[in-house]
Amino acid sequence: MRYELFYWPTIQGRGEFVRLALEEAAAPYVDVARSKAGMKRMQAILDDPRLARPPFAPPFLKAGRMLVAQTANILLFIGERHGLAPRDCAGRLFVHQLQLTLADLVAEVHDAHHPIASSLYYEDQRREARRRTGHLLDERVPKFLRYCERVLAATPRARWIAGARLSYADLSLFQVVAGLSYAYPRAMQRLAPRHPRVMDVAARVAARPRVAAYLASPRRIAFNEDGIFRHYRALDL
Amino acid sequence: MRYELFYWPTIQGRGEFVRLALEEAAAPYVDVARSKAGMKRMQAILDDPRLARPPFAPPFLKAGRMLVAQTANILLFIGERHGLAPRDCAGRLFVHQLQLTLADLVAEVHDAHHPIASSLYYEDQRREARRRTGHLLDERVPKFLRYCERVLAATPRARWIAGARLSYADLSLFQVVAGLSYAYPRAMQRLAPRHPRVMDVAARVAARPRVAAYLASPRRIAFNEDGIFRHYRALDL
Repeated sequence: MRYELFYWPTIQGRGEFVRLALEEAAAPYVDVARSKAGMKRMQAILDDPRLARPPFAPPFLKAGRMLVAQTANILLFIGERHGLAPRDCAGRLFVHQLQLTLADLVAEVHDAHHPIASSLYYEDQRREARRRTGHLLDERVPKFLRYCERVLAATPRARWIAGARLSYADLSLFQVVAGLSYAYPRAMQRLAPRHPRVMDVAARVAARPRVAAYLASPRRIAFNEDGIFRHYRALDL
Repeated sequence: MRYELFYWPTIQGRGEFVRLALEEAAAPYVDVARSKAGMKRMQAILDDPRLARPPFAPPFLKAGRMLVAQTANILLFIGERHGLAPRDCAGRLFVHQLQLTLADLVAEVHDAHHPIASSLYYEDQRREARRRTGHLLDERVPKFLRYCERVLAATPRARWIAGARLSYADLSLFQVVAGLSYAYPRAMQRLAPRHPRVMDVAARVAARPRVAAYLASPRRIAFNEDGIFRHYRALDL
Protein backbone atom coordinates (compact mmCIF):
# COMPACT_ATOMS: atom_id res chain seq x y z
CA MET A 1 0.00 0.00 0.00
CA ARG A 2 1.18 3.49 -0.82
CA TYR A 3 0.33 6.29 1.60
CA GLU A 4 -1.01 9.56 0.30
CA LEU A 5 0.14 12.60 2.24
CA PHE A 6 -1.88 15.80 1.84
CA TYR A 7 -0.11 19.00 2.77
CA TRP A 8 0.68 22.47 1.40
CA PRO A 9 3.14 21.92 -1.43
CA THR A 10 5.52 24.86 -0.94
CA ILE A 11 6.40 24.71 2.75
CA GLN A 12 7.83 22.28 5.29
CA GLY A 13 5.29 23.34 7.91
CA ARG A 14 3.63 20.71 10.07
CA GLY A 15 3.65 18.26 7.17
CA GLU A 16 7.43 17.96 7.50
CA PHE A 17 7.12 15.95 10.73
CA VAL A 18 5.10 13.39 8.78
CA ARG A 19 7.44 13.44 5.77
CA LEU A 20 10.42 12.74 8.04
CA ALA A 21 8.71 9.76 9.64
CA LEU A 22 7.66 8.29 6.28
CA GLU A 23 11.18 8.78 4.90
CA GLU A 24 12.90 7.20 7.92
CA ALA A 25 10.45 4.28 7.76
CA ALA A 26 11.10 3.90 4.02
CA ALA A 27 7.32 3.83 3.65
CA PRO A 28 6.12 4.40 0.07
CA TYR A 29 4.11 7.64 -0.16
CA VAL A 30 2.99 10.33 -2.56
CA ASP A 31 3.09 13.97 -1.53
CA VAL A 32 -0.23 14.54 -3.29
CA ALA A 33 -0.49 18.33 -3.39
CA ARG A 34 2.93 18.56 -5.06
CA SER A 35 1.72 16.53 -8.03
CA LYS A 36 -0.47 17.72 -10.91
CA ALA A 37 -4.03 18.54 -9.83
CA GLY A 38 -3.02 17.52 -6.30
CA MET A 39 -4.14 20.77 -4.69
CA LYS A 40 -7.58 20.27 -6.19
CA ARG A 41 -7.81 16.79 -4.67
CA MET A 42 -6.73 18.10 -1.29
CA GLN A 43 -9.29 20.89 -1.38
CA ALA A 44 -12.04 18.47 -2.48
CA ILE A 45 -11.42 16.33 0.62
CA LEU A 46 -11.36 19.38 2.89
CA ASP A 47 -14.71 20.51 1.43
CA ASP A 48 -16.54 17.16 1.13
CA PRO A 49 -19.62 17.40 3.40
CA ARG A 50 -20.34 13.66 3.20
CA LEU A 51 -17.01 12.61 4.71
CA ALA A 52 -17.76 10.96 8.06
CA ARG A 53 -14.29 11.62 9.44
CA PRO A 54 -13.05 14.79 7.77
CA PRO A 55 -9.79 16.55 8.59
CA PHE A 56 -9.96 20.06 10.01
CA ALA A 57 -6.82 21.09 8.11
CA PRO A 58 -3.72 19.65 6.43
CA PRO A 59 -1.67 17.61 7.03
CA PHE A 60 -3.70 14.45 6.65
CA LEU A 61 -2.74 10.98 5.54
CA LYS A 62 -4.71 8.52 3.46
CA ALA A 63 -3.89 4.89 4.22
CA GLY A 64 -6.17 2.70 2.16
CA ARG A 65 -9.66 3.76 3.18
CA MET A 66 -8.50 5.44 6.36
CA LEU A 67 -8.02 9.19 6.60
CA VAL A 68 -5.93 10.37 9.57
CA ALA A 69 -5.42 14.02 10.47
CA GLN A 70 -3.56 16.10 13.07
CA THR A 71 0.23 15.82 12.88
CA ALA A 72 0.78 14.09 16.23
CA ASN A 73 -2.08 11.68 15.53
CA ILE A 74 -0.62 10.75 12.14
CA LEU A 75 2.70 10.06 13.85
CA LEU A 76 0.97 7.93 16.49
CA PHE A 77 -0.45 5.88 13.61
CA ILE A 78 2.77 5.66 11.56
CA GLY A 79 4.88 5.10 14.67
CA GLU A 80 2.97 1.97 15.61
CA ARG A 81 2.94 0.55 12.10
CA HIS A 82 6.58 1.20 11.24
CA GLY A 83 8.45 0.65 14.47
CA LEU A 84 9.01 4.35 15.18
CA ALA A 85 7.56 4.04 18.68
CA PRO A 86 7.95 1.55 21.54
CA ARG A 87 5.47 -1.33 21.62
CA ASP A 88 4.73 -1.12 25.34
CA CYS A 89 1.98 1.22 26.52
CA ALA A 90 4.13 3.42 28.78
CA GLY A 91 6.81 3.92 26.12
CA ARG A 92 4.31 4.58 23.37
CA LEU A 93 2.53 7.21 25.48
CA PHE A 94 5.81 8.88 26.46
CA VAL A 95 6.87 9.28 22.83
CA HIS A 96 3.47 10.78 22.07
CA GLN A 97 3.80 13.09 25.07
CA LEU A 98 7.15 14.34 23.74
CA GLN A 99 5.60 14.88 20.30
CA LEU A 100 2.73 16.91 21.77
CA THR A 101 5.21 18.96 23.79
CA LEU A 102 7.23 19.73 20.65
CA ALA A 103 3.96 20.53 18.84
CA ASP A 104 3.22 23.14 21.50
CA LEU A 105 6.60 24.75 20.82
CA VAL A 106 5.95 24.68 17.07
CA ALA A 107 2.63 26.49 17.61
CA GLU A 108 4.40 29.10 19.74
CA VAL A 109 7.04 29.62 17.04
CA HIS A 110 4.29 30.14 14.48
CA ASP A 111 2.47 32.61 16.71
CA ALA A 112 5.67 34.55 17.31
CA HIS A 113 5.48 35.89 13.74
CA HIS A 114 1.66 35.90 13.76
CA PRO A 115 0.71 36.99 17.29
CA ILE A 116 -2.51 38.73 16.26
CA ALA A 117 -3.96 36.55 13.48
CA SER A 118 -2.92 33.90 10.95
CA SER A 119 -5.15 35.66 8.45
CA LEU A 120 -3.09 38.87 8.54
CA TYR A 121 0.30 39.36 6.91
CA TYR A 122 3.38 39.39 9.09
CA GLU A 123 3.88 42.99 7.98
CA ASP A 124 0.58 43.91 9.65
CA GLN A 125 1.70 42.63 13.06
CA ARG A 126 5.42 43.30 12.96
CA ARG A 127 5.58 45.29 16.17
CA GLU A 128 3.66 42.66 18.12
CA ALA A 129 5.79 39.94 16.52
CA ARG A 130 8.94 41.60 17.80
CA ARG A 131 7.56 41.74 21.32
CA ARG A 132 6.33 38.16 21.29
CA THR A 133 9.51 36.77 19.74
CA GLY A 134 11.49 38.41 22.54
CA HIS A 135 9.54 36.35 25.07
CA LEU A 136 9.76 33.24 22.87
CA LEU A 137 13.56 33.37 22.71
CA ASP A 138 14.14 34.54 26.29
CA GLU A 139 11.69 32.25 28.06
CA ARG A 140 9.93 29.63 25.97
CA VAL A 141 12.56 28.16 23.63
CA PRO A 142 15.07 27.83 26.50
CA LYS A 143 12.39 26.13 28.64
CA PHE A 144 11.56 23.57 25.93
CA LEU A 145 15.22 22.88 25.11
CA ARG A 146 16.06 22.56 28.81
CA TYR A 147 13.23 20.05 29.15
CA CYS A 148 14.52 17.91 26.26
CA GLU A 149 18.07 18.11 27.61
CA ARG A 150 16.79 17.00 31.00
CA VAL A 151 14.96 13.99 29.52
CA LEU A 152 18.13 12.95 27.69
CA ALA A 153 20.28 13.48 30.79
CA ALA A 154 17.97 11.41 33.01
CA THR A 155 18.71 8.21 31.08
CA PRO A 156 22.38 8.64 30.19
CA ARG A 157 22.79 5.24 28.57
CA ALA A 158 19.85 5.69 26.20
CA ARG A 159 20.91 6.69 22.70
CA TRP A 160 17.63 8.43 21.85
CA ILE A 161 15.15 10.66 23.65
CA ALA A 162 12.77 7.87 24.61
CA GLY A 163 15.24 5.04 25.07
CA ALA A 164 17.47 2.66 23.14
CA ARG A 165 15.59 2.91 19.86
CA LEU A 166 14.92 5.88 17.62
CA SER A 167 11.31 7.12 17.70
CA TYR A 168 9.34 9.74 15.81
CA ALA A 169 10.00 12.11 18.73
CA ASP A 170 13.72 12.09 17.80
CA LEU A 171 12.88 12.94 14.19
CA SER A 172 10.66 15.78 15.40
CA LEU A 173 13.34 17.05 17.76
CA PHE A 174 15.73 17.20 14.81
CA GLN A 175 13.16 19.17 12.81
CA VAL A 176 12.58 21.63 15.64
CA VAL A 177 16.33 22.20 16.09
CA ALA A 178 16.76 22.62 12.31
CA GLY A 179 13.86 25.08 12.20
CA LEU A 180 15.04 27.11 15.17
CA SER A 181 18.58 27.23 13.74
CA TYR A 182 17.20 28.54 10.45
CA ALA A 183 14.85 31.09 11.97
CA TYR A 184 17.03 32.33 14.82
CA PRO A 185 20.70 31.63 14.01
CA ARG A 186 21.99 34.19 16.49
CA ALA A 187 19.78 33.01 19.35
CA MET A 188 20.61 29.38 18.61
CA GLN A 189 24.33 30.08 18.56
CA ARG A 190 23.91 31.15 22.15
CA LEU A 191 21.54 28.30 23.13
CA ALA A 192 23.12 25.32 21.37
CA PRO A 193 26.20 24.92 23.62
CA ARG A 194 23.94 24.74 26.68
CA HIS A 195 22.04 21.78 25.22
CA PRO A 196 24.73 19.39 23.97
CA ARG A 197 22.54 16.25 24.21
CA VAL A 198 19.74 17.83 22.17
CA MET A 199 22.20 18.99 19.52
CA ASP A 200 23.78 15.54 19.44
CA VAL A 201 20.44 13.79 18.86
CA ALA A 202 19.61 16.27 16.09
CA ALA A 203 22.98 15.65 14.43
CA ARG A 204 22.62 11.87 14.66
CA VAL A 205 19.12 12.03 13.13
CA ALA A 206 20.44 14.14 10.25
CA ALA A 207 23.19 11.57 9.64
CA ARG A 208 20.90 8.56 9.38
CA PRO A 209 21.19 7.24 5.84
CA ARG A 210 17.53 7.63 4.88
CA VAL A 211 17.14 11.01 6.53
CA ALA A 212 20.40 12.25 5.00
CA ALA A 213 19.29 11.06 1.54
CA TYR A 214 15.94 12.78 2.01
CA LEU A 215 17.49 16.07 3.17
CA ALA A 216 19.75 16.08 0.09
CA SER A 217 16.87 15.32 -2.29
CA PRO A 218 14.45 17.71 -4.01
CA ARG A 219 11.70 16.17 -1.85
CA ARG A 220 12.98 18.32 1.05
CA ILE A 221 11.50 21.77 0.52
CA ALA A 222 13.86 24.52 1.67
CA PHE A 223 12.92 26.61 4.70
CA ASN A 224 11.25 29.81 3.58
CA GLU A 225 9.23 32.75 4.86
CA ASP A 226 5.85 31.14 4.21
CA GLY A 227 6.41 28.25 6.63
CA ILE A 228 6.40 28.01 10.41
CA PHE A 229 10.12 28.60 10.96
CA ARG A 230 10.82 31.96 9.29
CA HIS A 231 13.98 33.97 9.30
CA TYR A 232 13.28 37.65 9.83
CA ARG A 233 16.48 39.43 10.83
CA ALA A 234 14.57 41.83 13.04
CA LEU A 235 13.25 38.97 15.17
CA ASP A 236 16.49 37.06 15.76
CA LEU A 237 17.71 38.53 19.00
CA MET B 1 -6.04 1.60 41.86
CA ARG B 2 -6.66 5.28 42.49
CA TYR B 3 -5.40 7.76 39.90
CA GLU B 4 -3.58 10.86 41.04
CA LEU B 5 -4.26 13.93 38.93
CA PHE B 6 -1.78 16.81 39.16
CA TYR B 7 -3.04 20.20 38.04
CA TRP B 8 -3.30 23.78 39.21
CA PRO B 9 -5.80 23.78 42.06
CA THR B 10 -7.72 27.01 41.41
CA ILE B 11 -8.62 26.81 37.72
CA GLN B 12 -10.42 24.48 35.31
CA GLY B 13 -7.76 25.00 32.65
CA ARG B 14 -6.52 22.05 30.65
CA GLY B 15 -6.90 19.78 33.67
CA GLU B 16 -10.67 20.04 33.35
CA PHE B 17 -10.68 17.85 30.24
CA VAL B 18 -9.07 15.12 32.33
CA ARG B 19 -11.36 15.69 35.32
CA LEU B 20 -14.44 15.32 33.09
CA ALA B 21 -13.20 12.03 31.65
CA LEU B 22 -12.37 10.61 35.09
CA GLU B 23 -15.77 11.69 36.44
CA GLU B 24 -17.73 10.24 33.50
CA ALA B 25 -15.75 6.99 33.82
CA ALA B 26 -16.43 6.92 37.58
CA ALA B 27 -12.71 6.30 37.96
CA PRO B 28 -11.42 6.87 41.51
CA TYR B 29 -8.95 9.77 41.56
CA VAL B 30 -7.41 12.38 43.82
CA ASP B 31 -6.94 15.94 42.60
CA VAL B 32 -3.59 16.10 44.35
CA ALA B 33 -2.75 19.80 44.22
CA ARG B 34 -6.10 20.64 45.88
CA SER B 35 -5.19 18.61 48.94
CA LYS B 36 -2.85 19.60 51.77
CA ALA B 37 0.78 19.81 50.65
CA GLY B 38 -0.38 18.79 47.18
CA MET B 39 1.22 21.74 45.41
CA LYS B 40 4.55 20.80 46.97
CA ARG B 41 4.25 17.25 45.64
CA MET B 42 3.36 18.52 42.18
CA GLN B 43 6.33 20.90 42.13
CA ALA B 44 8.68 18.16 43.37
CA ILE B 45 7.73 15.96 40.40
CA LEU B 46 8.13 18.86 37.96
CA ASP B 47 11.61 19.55 39.38
CA ASP B 48 12.91 15.99 39.87
CA PRO B 49 15.98 15.64 37.61
CA ARG B 50 16.12 11.84 38.01
CA LEU B 51 12.69 11.23 36.54
CA ALA B 52 13.16 9.30 33.29
CA ARG B 53 9.81 10.40 31.85
CA PRO B 54 9.10 13.81 33.35
CA PRO B 55 6.12 15.99 32.42
CA PHE B 56 6.82 19.35 30.80
CA ALA B 57 3.89 20.95 32.63
CA PRO B 58 0.61 20.08 34.39
CA PRO B 59 -1.74 18.35 33.88
CA PHE B 60 -0.20 14.96 34.45
CA LEU B 61 -1.68 11.73 35.74
CA LYS B 62 -0.10 9.12 37.96
CA ALA B 63 -1.45 5.63 37.38
CA GLY B 64 0.44 3.21 39.56
CA ARG B 65 4.06 3.67 38.51
CA MET B 66 3.17 5.34 35.22
CA LEU B 67 3.27 9.10 34.79
CA VAL B 68 1.37 10.41 31.76
CA ALA B 69 1.41 14.06 30.67
CA GLN B 70 -0.12 16.24 27.93
CA THR B 71 -3.91 16.55 28.12
CA ALA B 72 -4.72 14.74 24.87
CA ASN B 73 -2.26 11.99 25.71
CA ILE B 74 -3.83 11.46 29.15
CA LEU B 75 -7.23 11.19 27.46
CA LEU B 76 -5.85 8.68 24.96
CA PHE B 77 -4.75 6.60 27.94
CA ILE B 78 -7.95 6.98 29.99
CA GLY B 79 -10.14 6.57 26.90
CA GLU B 80 -8.74 3.15 26.14
CA ARG B 81 -8.90 1.93 29.72
CA HIS B 82 -12.39 3.17 30.53
CA GLY B 83 -14.36 2.73 27.32
CA LEU B 84 -14.34 6.42 26.42
CA ALA B 85 -12.97 5.72 22.93
CA PRO B 86 -13.76 3.16 20.22
CA ARG B 87 -11.75 -0.06 20.30
CA ASP B 88 -10.99 -0.18 16.59
CA CYS B 89 -7.92 1.66 15.30
CA ALA B 90 -9.71 4.05 12.92
CA GLY B 91 -12.27 5.09 15.51
CA ARG B 92 -9.68 5.50 18.24
CA LEU B 93 -7.53 7.71 16.00
CA PHE B 94 -10.52 9.80 14.92
CA VAL B 95 -11.50 10.56 18.52
CA HIS B 96 -7.91 11.56 19.21
CA GLN B 97 -7.90 13.74 16.09
CA LEU B 98 -11.01 15.55 17.35
CA GLN B 99 -9.38 16.03 20.74
CA LEU B 100 -6.24 17.52 19.18
CA THR B 101 -8.39 19.82 17.05
CA LEU B 102 -10.25 21.05 20.14
CA ALA B 103 -6.90 21.44 21.91
CA ASP B 104 -5.78 23.76 19.12
CA LEU B 105 -8.87 25.90 19.69
CA VAL B 106 -8.21 25.93 23.44
CA ALA B 107 -4.67 27.18 22.81
CA GLU B 108 -6.04 29.92 20.55
CA VAL B 109 -8.55 30.97 23.20
CA HIS B 110 -5.73 31.21 25.73
CA ASP B 111 -3.58 33.26 23.40
CA ALA B 112 -6.46 35.62 22.67
CA HIS B 113 -6.06 37.11 26.16
CA HIS B 114 -2.29 36.54 26.16
CA PRO B 115 -1.17 37.28 22.59
CA ILE B 116 2.28 38.57 23.53
CA ALA B 117 3.38 36.35 26.42
CA SER B 118 1.96 34.04 29.08
CA SER B 119 4.43 35.55 31.50
CA LEU B 120 2.90 39.03 31.23
CA TYR B 121 -0.38 40.10 32.80
CA TYR B 122 -3.43 40.49 30.62
CA GLU B 123 -3.37 44.19 31.53
CA ASP B 124 0.02 44.51 29.82
CA GLN B 125 -1.29 43.23 26.49
CA ARG B 126 -4.87 44.45 26.56
CA ARG B 127 -4.76 46.26 23.23
CA GLU B 128 -3.25 43.28 21.42
CA ALA B 129 -5.76 40.99 23.16
CA ARG B 130 -8.63 43.06 21.79
CA ARG B 131 -7.27 42.77 18.27
CA ARG B 132 -6.57 39.06 18.49
CA THR B 133 -9.92 38.26 20.10
CA GLY B 134 -11.65 40.01 17.21
CA HIS B 135 -10.05 37.56 14.81
CA LEU B 136 -10.72 34.65 17.16
CA LEU B 137 -14.45 35.36 17.30
CA ASP B 138 -14.87 36.40 13.67
CA GLU B 139 -12.80 33.68 12.04
CA ARG B 140 -11.46 30.95 14.27
CA VAL B 141 -14.26 30.01 16.68
CA PRO B 142 -16.81 29.91 13.81
CA LYS B 143 -14.44 27.71 11.80
CA PHE B 144 -13.98 25.21 14.63
CA LEU B 145 -17.71 25.13 15.47
CA ARG B 146 -18.60 24.73 11.79
CA TYR B 147 -16.19 21.80 11.60
CA CYS B 148 -17.77 20.04 14.60
CA GLU B 149 -21.26 20.71 13.22
CA ARG B 150 -20.18 19.23 9.91
CA VAL B 151 -18.82 16.08 11.55
CA LEU B 152 -22.10 15.63 13.43
CA ALA B 153 -24.16 16.30 10.28
CA ALA B 154 -22.20 13.78 8.19
CA THR B 155 -23.41 10.84 10.30
CA PRO B 156 -26.97 11.89 11.17
CA ARG B 157 -27.89 8.68 12.97
CA ALA B 158 -24.90 8.81 15.31
CA ARG B 159 -25.77 10.15 18.74
CA TRP B 160 -22.27 11.40 19.51
CA ILE B 161 -19.49 13.12 17.60
CA ALA B 162 -17.56 9.96 16.79
CA GLY B 163 -20.45 7.53 16.48
CA ALA B 164 -23.00 5.64 18.53
CA ARG B 165 -21.09 5.78 21.80
CA LEU B 166 -19.96 8.71 23.88
CA SER B 167 -16.21 9.39 23.74
CA TYR B 168 -13.85 11.76 25.48
CA ALA B 169 -14.16 14.05 22.45
CA ASP B 170 -17.82 14.64 23.37
CA LEU B 171 -16.85 15.55 26.93
CA SER B 172 -14.23 17.95 25.58
CA LEU B 173 -16.69 19.49 23.13
CA PHE B 174 -19.02 20.15 26.06
CA GLN B 175 -16.17 21.81 27.97
CA VAL B 176 -15.24 24.00 25.00
CA VAL B 177 -18.86 25.11 24.51
CA ALA B 178 -19.21 25.78 28.26
CA GLY B 179 -15.97 27.78 28.24
CA LEU B 180 -16.84 29.81 25.16
CA SER B 181 -20.31 30.54 26.59
CA TYR B 182 -18.74 31.79 29.80
CA ALA B 183 -16.03 33.87 28.14
CA TYR B 184 -18.02 35.28 25.22
CA PRO B 185 -21.75 35.18 26.06
CA ARG B 186 -22.64 37.77 23.43
CA ALA B 187 -20.65 36.13 20.64
CA MET B 188 -22.00 32.70 21.56
CA GLN B 189 -25.59 33.96 21.59
CA ARG B 190 -25.04 34.74 17.93
CA LEU B 191 -23.12 31.54 17.12
CA ALA B 192 -25.13 28.93 19.03
CA PRO B 193 -28.24 28.88 16.78
CA ARG B 194 -26.06 28.18 13.75
CA HIS B 195 -24.62 25.05 15.39
CA PRO B 196 -27.61 23.15 16.76
CA ARG B 197 -25.94 19.73 16.70
CA VAL B 198 -22.93 20.99 18.65
CA MET B 199 -25.17 22.65 21.22
CA ASP B 200 -27.25 19.49 21.48
CA VAL B 201 -24.21 17.28 22.19
CA ALA B 202 -23.00 19.77 24.80
CA ALA B 203 -26.44 19.74 26.49
CA ARG B 204 -26.64 15.95 26.49
CA VAL B 205 -23.16 15.66 27.99
CA ALA B 206 -24.13 18.10 30.75
CA ALA B 207 -27.24 16.01 31.48
CA ARG B 208 -25.43 12.71 31.92
CA PRO B 209 -25.90 11.65 35.54
CA ARG B 210 -22.22 11.52 36.49
CA VAL B 211 -21.33 14.71 34.64
CA ALA B 212 -24.35 16.52 36.10
CA ALA B 213 -23.42 15.35 39.61
CA TYR B 214 -19.86 16.51 39.08
CA LEU B 215 -20.89 19.92 37.73
CA ALA B 216 -23.11 20.46 40.78
CA SER B 217 -20.37 19.40 43.22
CA PRO B 218 -17.61 21.48 44.82
CA ARG B 219 -15.14 19.43 42.77
CA ARG B 220 -16.08 21.58 39.76
CA ILE B 221 -14.09 24.79 40.09
CA ALA B 222 -16.02 27.81 38.80
CA PHE B 223 -14.79 29.56 35.66
CA ASN B 224 -12.65 32.54 36.60
CA GLU B 225 -10.21 35.05 35.18
CA ASP B 226 -7.11 32.99 35.94
CA GLY B 227 -8.11 30.11 33.66
CA ILE B 228 -8.15 29.65 29.91
CA PHE B 229 -11.73 30.77 29.32
CA ARG B 230 -11.90 34.27 30.79
CA HIS B 231 -14.73 36.74 30.67
CA TYR B 232 -13.48 40.21 29.94
CA ARG B 233 -16.38 42.41 28.83
CA ALA B 234 -14.14 44.38 26.50
CA LEU B 235 -13.25 41.24 24.54
CA ASP B 236 -16.76 39.79 24.04
CA LEU B 237 -17.76 41.28 20.73
